[in-house]
Amino acid sequence: MQQAIAVLDSGVGGLTVVKEVMRQLPREKILYFGDTARTPYGPRNAEEVITFTREIVDYLVQYKPKMVVIACNTATAVALEDIRSRVDLPVVGVINPGARAAVGRTKTGVVGVIGTEGTIKSGAYESALKRLSPSVEVISRACPSFVPLVEDGNFSSSETYDTVSNSLFPLRNSTMDCLILGCTHYPFLADTISEVMGSEVVLINSAEETAREISTILHVNKELVGRGEVPVHQFFCSGDPRKFQDIAQAWLGEQIRLTPVVWQVPHIGA
Amino acid sequence: MQQAIAVLDSGVGGLTVVKEVMRQLPREKILYFGDTARTPYGPRNAEEVITFTREIVDYLVQYKPKMVVIACNTATAVALEDIRSRVDLPVVGVINPGARAAVGRTKTGVVGVIGTEGTIKSGAYESALKRLSPSVEVISRACPSFVPLVEDGNFSSSETYDTVSNSLFPLRNSTMDCLILGCTHYPFLADTISEVMGSEVVLINSAEETAREISTILHVNKELVGRGEVPVHQFFCSGDPRKFQDIAQAWLGEQIRLTPVVWQVPHIGA
Repeated sequence: MQQAIAVLDSGVGGLTVVKEVMRQLPREKILYFGDTARTPYGPRNAEEVITFTREIVDYLVQYKPKMVVIACNTATAVALEDIRSRVDLPVVGVINPGARAAVGRTKTGVVGVIGTEGTIKSGAYESALKRLSPSVEVISRACPSFVPLVEDGNFSSSETYDTVSNSLFPLRNSTMDCLILGCTHYPFLADTISEVMGSEVVLINSAEETAREISTILHVNKELVGRGEVPVHQFFCSGDPRKFQDIAQAWLGEQIRLTPVVWQVPHIGA
Repeated sequence: MQQAIAVLDSGVGGLTVVKEVMRQLPREKILYFGDTARTPYGPRNAEEVITFTREIVDYLVQYKPKMVVIACNTATAVALEDIRSRVDLPVVGVINPGARAAVGRTKTGVVGVIGTEGTIKSGAYESALKRLSPSVEVISRACPSFVPLVEDGNFSSSETYDTVSNSLFPLRNSTMDCLILGCTHYPFLADTISEVMGSEVVLINSAEETAREISTILHVNKELVGRGEVPVHQFFCSGDPRKFQDIAQAWLGEQIRLTPVVWQVPHIGA
């Protein structure tokens, strides 16, 4: 049986990472867990987020995946190092790939980061960026109004433009040339964000960059699947499976051309 | 002592990878070997390139590096798998990082590749791209006139524009949205290539992407160096050390602000 890439998130946001893995690595099997019964993780304390993340990882490793991906900014900021020390598998979060891409692409050395309040307050992007390149200047801004827009499917209305424009206004008067979309929901707003920031600012899509790093690691570990494999993905959630299925269908439909089968895991999140 | 990243090339072209590693990972120590006595590898047969590459890797592993980077397209195409099976270290070439970046960034699914005749003839980029994503369409073109322009330091004259424009003309009438610079020398011509191809075509700089993958792998292997380290790089070549030193100084000067100390290795390439 093909070994899967295990992807976990506090809810549905991590599906943007799944979508990119499907696009960049169409032969790889994915095992996804959305903790929809306990979403969002943002307002929870670190101890709780670590406990939840451990619980989900313990569940997923039963399926003997070849890699674990924490596709949630909050869980990455708080629990990545804990999980890396607990499981004997490569563990990838969504923060370092975005930071690495920004360090690779910036010419001015000034990098912007937008995310939820929790992610920005944690300083996780800033410390990931500085750890790679101490001379990088980081300008961060929380954009709490963006996730509701995405969850309402409101990607490009004039209300969306106004909200995005107001939130990002303080970032425009700088020499920043890269802006990290530091929340799994933000890629849906990329066109509007780009319109506001101007074409000279490169948007770094964490989902795209995380999928890229998954590809790199599997390649170096000689674990990319071979030709001819047709993956059958599996989706799990802790909350209402029908609701999750509808969103997964809407977000991934183009990639999977199938209704995802979603299994509810009753002992998690109950 | 800090473990180094060992980088090898048939000559000086791999210094573009070194420059990017210095930029993206300023704390990492580099050990570089340029086989200047036997450059170029392009016209040599596969057996010879494998023998030369093995010889240099055997020399570099004496220094106990933490990773080996084959910063030469010809050697990557021919010898990467051989070296990966011989040494118990992560081995990175320059072809997969470029291919992976292109798969990540293309929206149209049409990717261009330019390189030396040897690289294009080997089909290595095309197979790397197709292995990742079978549906990608690849348009390749050898540009034998580009390396001499770079080696003459002729990056942006009107003669350079004309040469680049003539070489790339056949690529312009397509839906390609990513163009891989599949030769370590080409990043020096990036501005001219971009002017010819238009701003809607993203140029994939293999050196930049390779440095990014080095960063990813060191991170996952928990081998990135910590704060406060000041690396002292080492350069080796098989040919005239003064000539190599002049080029390294010119290409890397801004990054290292020091004259590189180059050691000639007499038993290699003699």
